[in-house]
Amino acid sequence: MLDYIRDGQEIYRRSFAIIRSEANLARIPADLEKLAVRVAHACGMPDVVDDLMFSDGAGAAGRAALAAGAPIFCDCRMVSEGLTRARLPAGNDILCTLPEPGVPERAQEIGNTRTAAALDWWLPRLEGSVVAIGNAPTALFRLLELLDAGAPKPALILGFPVGFVGAAESKDELAANPRGVPFVAVRGRRGGSAMTAAAVNALGTEKE
Amino acid sequence: MLDYIRDGQEIYRRSFAIIRSEANLARIPADLEKLAVRVAHACGMPDVVDDLMFSDGAGAAGRAALAAGAPIFCDCRMVSEGLTRARLPAGNDILCTLPEPGVPERAQEIGNTRTAAALDWWLPRLEGSVVAIGNAPTALFRLLELLDAGAPKPALILGFPVGFVGAAESKDELAANPRGVPFVAVRGRRGGSAMTAAAVNALGTEKE
Repeated sequence: MLDYIRDGQEIYRRSFAIIRSEANLARIPADLEKLAVRVAHACGMPDVVDDLMFSDGAGAAGRAALAAGAPIFCDCRMVSEGLTRARLPAGNDILCTLPEPGVPERAQEIGNTRTAAALDWWLPRLEGSVVAIGNAPTALFRLLELLDAGAPKPALILGFPVGFVGAAESKDELAANPRGVPFVAVRGRRGGSAMTAAAVNALGTEKE
Repeated sequence: MLDYIRDGQEIYRRSFAIIRSEANLARIPADLEKLAVRVAHACGMPDVVDDLMFSDGAGAAGRAALAAGAPIFCDCRMVSEGLTRARLPAGNDILCTLPEPGVPERAQEIGNTRTAAALDWWLPRLEGSVVAIGNAPTALFRLLELLDAGAPKPALILGFPVGFVGAAESKDELAANPRGVPFVAVRGRRGGSAMTAAAVNALGTEKE
């Protein structure tokens, strides 16, 4: 038998302890501490905490929205599949509209990616929602454009698109001008569905 | 309108070009070059290429298995949801057995995580399969234990568990003694479902 820890709860406990001993959490506000720890946990990198960008009260805003039953809009299925339903406080709807019929045609029409086009299907329930973008920079850019055009405001934007083209730029645009919406994002190229799902999971309950 | 690239194909093209200009691909064998690039793409970190560990011919073995119709076993739904079905050469089955009835009881019985216990459901089709572990170190440890106990050999192990407890150790164990199975893994704490799915997607077709 190989020698390793087989108890899931013990793995979580030790993991979070390692992160808290290695990450620089001093500048992270109390309402985002557990989110920062979970995001680091999801990627195996305590230093990702140094790249977190956020607005004042973003964690509290996200928690309140979830407690009030806000739907969670995800830009891809990897994010929605990463959400732990048991951690959500109000049986919140988890929505990924990318597979909706009409999305490819809408993408053609607006000259953008399908992921960006799928945001049109968010509009009826966007107000007060939690938006979790963990893949496509074009989705985050599109959200900001829709807000500029007068779209209803979500309660929180989690901006974690990943990659080499547009990811850093879209998150810098969000942080520079969040359009009056509370936000959390990770600066630079890093991001992804696991970090994004971890952020939502952290806001769902105080329980670690 | 914000100024950003909206064409998905162009985003891919530029991303891969940036990775090839920044990553050190010199030591990566030809049959893993596209895999290395896609793994870096999935996490936004060209330097992850430096941490890739692999056996000789692992890429060719994985491609051949997929072309021959091998099923793909995934340790979690985030990996299986990240696979691009259109890139798979033979309508390959994508299997995640974590939700199978009986898994929680089996976890109790063997004193391990549910993710590890779910591997028992892989055994009937494990021979010649492609194994994609992108979340749980306990799943990779368990796979190695099953192989030690005489389980059928997969055609390829993609070992990308992530985190602070057991991730680095499980991948080091795989690399030190791959039990005669071709493998690709990323050394250390980094890993995750996006990198894992990217690795499978890269092996599915030569097309970028």
